[in-house]
Amino acid sequence: MSAPGNTEIKSKRQGRPPIIPDARNRILDDAARLFAQDGYDGTSLGELAASVGVTKAAIYHYFPNKKEIYEAIIVRTLEGLRQHVSQATMQTSGPEEALAGFMTAHADFFEEHYDGFLTMLVGYGGMENVVMIAEAQKLRDDHEQALRQIIADGVAQGAFRPIDIDTTSRAILSMLNWMVRWFKPGKGRRAAAFAQDYCDLMLGGLRS
Amino acid sequence: MSAPGNTEIKSKRQGRPPIIPDARNRILDDAARLFAQDGYDGTSLGELAASVGVTKAAIYHYFPNKKEIYEAIIVRTLEGLRQHVSQATMQTSGPEEALAGFMTAHADFFEEHYDGFLTMLVGYGGMENVVMIAEAQKLRDDHEQALRQIIADGVAQGAFRPIDIDTTSRAILSMLNWMVRWFKPGKGRRAAAFAQDYCDLMLGGLRS
Repeated sequence: MSAPGNTEIKSKRQGRPPIIPDARNRILDDAARLFAQDGYDGTSLGELAASVGVTKAAIYHYFPNKKEIYEAIIVRTLEGLRQHVSQATMQTSGPEEALAGFMTAHADFFEEHYDGFLTMLVGYGGMENVVMIAEAQKLRDDHEQALRQIIADGVAQGAFRPIDIDTTSRAILSMLNWMVRWFKPGKGRRAAAFAQDYCDLMLGGLRS
Repeated sequence: MSAPGNTEIKSKRQGRPPIIPDARNRILDDAARLFAQDGYDGTSLGELAASVGVTKAAIYHYFPNKKEIYEAIIVRTLEGLRQHVSQATMQTSGPEEALAGFMTAHADFFEEHYDGFLTMLVGYGGMENVVMIAEAQKLRDDHEQALRQIIADGVAQGAFRPIDIDTTSRAILSMLNWMVRWFKPGKGRRAAAFAQDYCDLMLGGLRS
């Protein structure tokens, strides 16, 4: 009974894909682009493998199936967004600057990671892996909480009116997230410039 | 050669569906509900016919295919939104009231026609029938133009600061449209109450 075992090990070794530098991220990058372009159903693992320049077996070496790739894009995008925005707001002083930092960094990350962001916004509600769902929820909650904290600090410090935190944070995230419906990267103005306009509008209000 | 002709007429008459009161609207109502619930691909014309309580032939009497039903929902929703919002704003006086009227009526229509609204927001970009696309675009443009006019009037009358019309109308429509991602009808507060909060926030701004 030792021969089959040996054969199995040998065939596993033969089937092992070549080492791809930064493979996981490259697979996720190309998958996000294909999902954004052709939709989730319109993208096959064969196309993804061809795009990355590896075999389908190499893809399976990193991800058990297409759905896990999809959910990994969502979590990675939220991680990146969270990190990028918190770095940007850390360097600001005062609630107005912090709000502008939050909004422009959010828009900036959206523009720079457009495909992943699109995949994240489309796919968030349809996630199935409970571990990934928990991770994504935690990241989203942290991101929203950071915004709520900026607003709460502004109110506490007297820089902002005693506005409702829920309404304000929801209004701001709606403006930023709805960009996905009309903004196209690389066509003129940067997303962050639109976000700065929104921020100025929110701060000053409409009333003369 | 007269007999086949007669037979054809007779068979057509036999195949003619019974008259359904307000059939077109009933088909669109049920289709919107099914599309919102199970998605476009997940809804068959057989299910739709069963839901309306008619035969598939009866559906085909009104619409050539599923895609036309989908696009008819989009156009009907935009027509209804346009009509509801323009009626509401006509009864207001002054830019602040007009803005509140626009925003609460938009939210109200969204809540009352939730399934159609969902279908409209999901399907708008994927329309194929050029006549329907032109109708939908005209209605959407008219709706947006009505909002821009309210803002422009407010600036001209000195009620609003000299804010940028594009940024302001885009910000307001983003808040209203993003409701589709978090608001569920019939669970507590009305959509119009949230819209009124947004309006108050927009008018007063954040700065103390």
